[in-house]
Amino acid sequence: MVIVMQAHAEPEQVAAVIARVEGHGFTPHVSKGSERTIIGVIGDERPVDPEIFQVMPGVERVVRILAPFKLASREFHPADRVIELPNGARLGGEDVLLMAGPCAVESGEQLRASAEAVHSLGVRVLRGGAFKPRTSPYSFQGLGEKGLLLLREIADELGMAVITEVVSPEDVPLVAEHAEILQIGARNMQNYRLLRATGDSGRPVLLKRGLGSTIDELLQAAEYILAHGNDQVAVCERGIRTFETATRFTLDINAVPVLKHMTSLPVVVDPSHATGRSELVGAVARAAVAAGADGLLVEVHSNPQDALSDGPQSLDPPQFAKLVEECTRIAAAIGRTTG
Amino acid sequence: MVIVMQAHAEPEQVAAVIARVEGHGFTPHVSKGSERTIIGVIGDERPVDPEIFQVMPGVERVVRILAPFKLASREFHPADRVIELPNGARLGGEDVLLMAGPCAVESGEQLRASAEAVHSLGVRVLRGGAFKPRTSPYSFQGLGEKGLLLLREIADELGMAVITEVVSPEDVPLVAEHAEILQIGARNMQNYRLLRATGDSGRPVLLKRGLGSTIDELLQAAEYILAHGNDQVAVCERGIRTFETATRFTLDINAVPVLKHMTSLPVVVDPSHATGRSELVGAVARAAVAAGADGLLVEVHSNPQDALSDGPQSLDPPQFAKLVEECTRIAAAIGRTTG
Amino acid sequence: MVIVMQAHAEPEQVAAVIARVEGHGFTPHVSKGSERTIIGVIGDERPVDPEIFQVMPGVERVVRILAPFKLASREFHPADRVIELPNGARLGGEDVLLMAGPCAVESGEQLRASAEAVHSLGVRVLRGGAFKPRTSPYSFQGLGEKGLLLLREIADELGMAVITEVVSPEDVPLVAEHAEILQIGARNMQNYRLLRATGDSGRPVLLKRGLGSTIDELLQAAEYILAHGNDQVAVCERGIRTFETATRFTLDINAVPVLKHMTSLPVVVDPSHATGRSELVGAVARAAVAAGADGLLVEVHSNPQDALSDGPQSLDPPQFAKLVEECTRIAAAIGRTTG
Amino acid sequence: MVIVMQAHAEPEQVAAVIARVEGHGFTPHVSKGSERTIIGVIGDERPVDPEIFQVMPGVERVVRILAPFKLASREFHPADRVIELPNGARLGGEDVLLMAGPCAVESGEQLRASAEAVHSLGVRVLRGGAFKPRTSPYSFQGLGEKGLLLLREIADELGMAVITEVVSPEDVPLVAEHAEILQIGARNMQNYRLLRATGDSGRPVLLKRGLGSTIDELLQAAEYILAHGNDQVAVCERGIRTFETATRFTLDINAVPVLKHMTSLPVVVDPSHATGRSELVGAVARAAVAAGADGLLVEVHSNPQDALSDGPQSLDPPQFAKLVEECTRIAAAIGRTTG
Repeated sequence: MVIVMQAHAEPEQVAAVIARVEGHGFTPHVSKGSERTIIGVIGDERPVDPEIFQVMPGVERVVRILAPFKLASREFHPADRVIELPNGARLGGEDVLLMAGPCAVESGEQLRASAEAVHSLGVRVLRGGAFKPRTSPYSFQGLGEKGLLLLREIADELGMAVITEVVSPEDVPLVAEHAEILQIGARNMQNYRLLRATGDSGRPVLLKRGLGSTIDELLQAAEYILAHGNDQVAVCERGIRTFETATRFTLDINAVPVLKHMTSLPVVVDPSHATGRSELVGAVARAAVAAGADGLLVEVHSNPQDALSDGPQSLDPPQFAKLVEECTRIAAAIGRTTG
Repeated sequence: MVIVMQAHAEPEQVAAVIARVEGHGFTPHVSKGSERTIIGVIGDERPVDPEIFQVMPGVERVVRILAPFKLASREFHPADRVIELPNGARLGGEDVLLMAGPCAVESGEQLRASAEAVHSLGVRVLRGGAFKPRTSPYSFQGLGEKGLLLLREIADELGMAVITEVVSPEDVPLVAEHAEILQIGARNMQNYRLLRATGDSGRPVLLKRGLGSTIDELLQAAEYILAHGNDQVAVCERGIRTFETATRFTLDINAVPVLKHMTSLPVVVDPSHATGRSELVGAVARAAVAAGADGLLVEVHSNPQDALSDGPQSLDPPQFAKLVEECTRIAAAIGRTTG
Repeated sequence: MVIVMQAHAEPEQVAAVIARVEGHGFTPHVSKGSERTIIGVIGDERPVDPEIFQVMPGVERVVRILAPFKLASREFHPADRVIELPNGARLGGEDVLLMAGPCAVESGEQLRASAEAVHSLGVRVLRGGAFKPRTSPYSFQGLGEKGLLLLREIADELGMAVITEVVSPEDVPLVAEHAEILQIGARNMQNYRLLRATGDSGRPVLLKRGLGSTIDELLQAAEYILAHGNDQVAVCERGIRTFETATRFTLDINAVPVLKHMTSLPVVVDPSHATGRSELVGAVARAAVAAGADGLLVEVHSNPQDALSDGPQSLDPPQFAKLVEECTRIAAAIGRTTG
Repeated sequence: MVIVMQAHAEPEQVAAVIARVEGHGFTPHVSKGSERTIIGVIGDERPVDPEIFQVMPGVERVVRILAPFKLASREFHPADRVIELPNGARLGGEDVLLMAGPCAVESGEQLRASAEAVHSLGVRVLRGGAFKPRTSPYSFQGLGEKGLLLLREIADELGMAVITEVVSPEDVPLVAEHAEILQIGARNMQNYRLLRATGDSGRPVLLKRGLGSTIDELLQAAEYILAHGNDQVAVCERGIRTFETATRFTLDINAVPVLKHMTSLPVVVDPSHATGRSELVGAVARAAVAAGADGLLVEVHSNPQDALSDGPQSLDPPQFAKLVEECTRIAAAIGRTTG
């Protein structure tokens, strides 16, 4: 940490800062510049909130040197982490893992048709929402536990793993019983009670970036889960809020290589939510694979026209077949396969 | 709702859309323009998701005419709503309600000193966090129930009401037992399970705008609470995420008059989180009152230098005294009082 | 400046950075932390681009300590700067200066009616666009020189000063001949050729913040004008681009006190562009005055329904009369007057 | 265009709107809904500003149906436009065109070394800035005309075309004499005088998206050039301003397929400015090609450590060689070549 004093800071103010630095067990290193005194803080600053210095009289600014997370950092764990699923699918290794299925479980028929379609294209992880967080209280809110049981039943028939969202700490045991991967949605990225609960679940967690959250905050949220003893965490870029209105969100493609530098957790991209328009999903999915994503989470519906949610961004099976073919070729161009 | 067909939409596509419009009990009104056909949807569109038309072949765009919320709208409830607290304080009426206190309850001493300071300046609602959502797992996470009891005890001594955050549905009964106002934080604005739980609580709710959420989404979140039978809801602008880095967030001052137009729910502003810097809080608080806010939520700490959280944005008692004096004069200039 | 080396930077990399620091005439101050080496750069860093160190092998990050502008900073010029106009109006002193008039000069009649209306309410600076930058090539582009002559003629009749936009360096002499204040629009904030040309003009300049520009960049743009020998510069907050769509832009009210801290240049707010909706202009103008703005720039049209541009955000004379009355009361509440 | 009246609009207000619609030569189509009257405007709305209806009493909202540009739209010109350069390079056809070179021309030696490096990797268009718009007045501002002559000389030696930025209308003839492609930078996207001047230049124009500009505004800016008789226009996505600070800007990868849908103009991506960090440029360049970009504009410096500008985002020749190889493989995966 570097503490920058104000231009006319008093010597006593500098002394008080130095005393507090030492009081926290750090070694201060003082540089008197032509216009400012700066104080280097030597030691492991990660668990310390810069605010404790920021608030002192005479302090202009405090600059962190180390990232505010540790377990999630690539420095701490240099090798890529790989999540192995019971059915042999892997997230974070050589292959680019495809996860696909409908936005919401609507019925056994709809889910079976969608699951069979993606399964026939080689997909081994079935997505589908049972507990749905919806912007409007008047929208379809999901089938709840019944949806969860349908996911499990149909995934078992096809030898697929299940990824599904969990929205509240009290639901974690139930969802963990039926799904191989717990998804934490963008709206809940900073629902810390939920993060802790999934930390204790024993199941891999896919953590989606909040639509107004920085990459740094995403990794701090992942740190919550890691710090609760669960090291099977993947992070997901799904589009952020910007001023552009042509698409529902703006996919932050830069985040893919940035995350690969900062963390060894697998990085997934959700091209469906990031665009909100099915005709754009294929191009953006190709971009994600080309940029180095370890997995894709794609909304596929057997009949998007009748979807109860997210129809406009859902692919039908032929559109998804095209996406798989194209992404497989892109993956091959950078020495990877899809699966 | 208005459905805009693509330039070269087929007659059968138009017919299919018309059929679906009628199938939902609406009356279609078709206009053939020079380049596009547009279909007006006559009826109460609020409970209908535009996606169901958006997804149909040949449809270019669907434009909502009515806002997607009803109970929260000023059209539905034209008169300003007023929340009356047991100690006589009112949110949403003539007065601008001041709510102040420390970011977090740290100890009985700290809370008592801070509470007495704000109470002596006429504040009748004490804020203070017992359950703290923190970005980093290594930051102080609040005293939990113990903090809640301290809030209640000290508020009772001073005849103050308590506003405090609730972060999980399972905590709602406990927090509702000890606090007059339940606060839902920005990170939980779209935690729908929590919204529903506060809907059932029988207590007034202050709902903070998510840092990446639109005004429209804020009112849809409020609609969740209203639809669960609780009409004592206030909304709070607390700064949104933008590209500007000089301040922690950007206060959306436009949101104050926009909200006053759109809803009759009381509108509160939090100048502390919106700026993140104590030296800016006063100016922004004055602006909020001038723009028409019904209340202010301000972080005041008896000794900000020793605060365990949010020290840099907390006012000390003399700074807060100045804020109260200035805001009272601003309120008078527009025909209101503070209290 | 503080240079943070990477975790595993080689001693030779550190040595190379030190050599370059010294080569630029600075004194390096090296701190070896537990995980990182950091190098303080002692000296006046303002004219140095941090990139020259950022680019070196082994460097992780370079942090500026001093702002990248000097002449525009309050440190360099602590006292508030005041711009005196020939007709006695002042921008930057005790009074809050009102500048008002139509978005565009459309005709002599329209301008005269609008000018008389605002003049009768005490306004001494007339705004009006002769050269109009318009998003669409098919929109009204302004009357050009003819509009400029109308502004001059009518302002002279009423004893008013003129503020009008200049869009290209070659127009600066012409506009400077007829207007007391040259306005640089948001779209041209970083049109450096234009900034330099206004630096040479001998006329006060009102520099509007770009809609995607930070406060820091705004002051660097002002620095261009100051560095070209013109110290009569005011800066204007007029709304920035955010994800919120309820208003045309988001007024960054925080920017008012932030700018007052960082610079002694007068700070103006444009509530018309910042909201885009006439029914919001009054509330936001009050907020701007309450937050400490030194001036307001308001669009007033004698008949907004017939305006050729910006009609929806233009006030009619009665609406503007109400704004003046309210802002005068707000100004009085903080010890200022309007004029 | 669709005009939505307020809930309680008076019949006379509706009548006035209808009269104005007819007065502009359109046919009104009135739908009385349960709560609102909406008026469809039949006819070519493109040259009409929605404001003229927005401003009328009783009007709540006006919704455009057609995009506000015509010549730039794919509807108007369905076939992909191709820009042919004198040396045989093509932008917008089958191939993905590589344009590369240093940020700024610094000297003959530096430019020659950089140009030879990219030429040897198959690049046929040399980029390099002679007139540099810089955020700070104290940064290197470019060599001006001397830089232009160096670009021409070295490009001629190598059989390359030149792309370089023009920053002011008065420079257009000079730059057009020496460069095959005129670049309009992000800061000048809405410098309409400059757009018009390039419209008359007879040279292809690469128009960069403003960092706070929507896709729609980018195409309206292109419309200015097209409307001035120049149909050789390409548009360039180079990153937009968002809240994310890990990268200098956020590349809007969605914009690539969105633009390909909306316009037939060639679409270029600049991965250097979009990331600001050389270690990210390769991944983002691959993503751009995978998403369908027609060209890449990449900063390559023979020795980035000594660059006078943009060193941290410039590739050295070996890094660029890797980018070319990877992008060529990605291009092949989607049936294209690079060149």
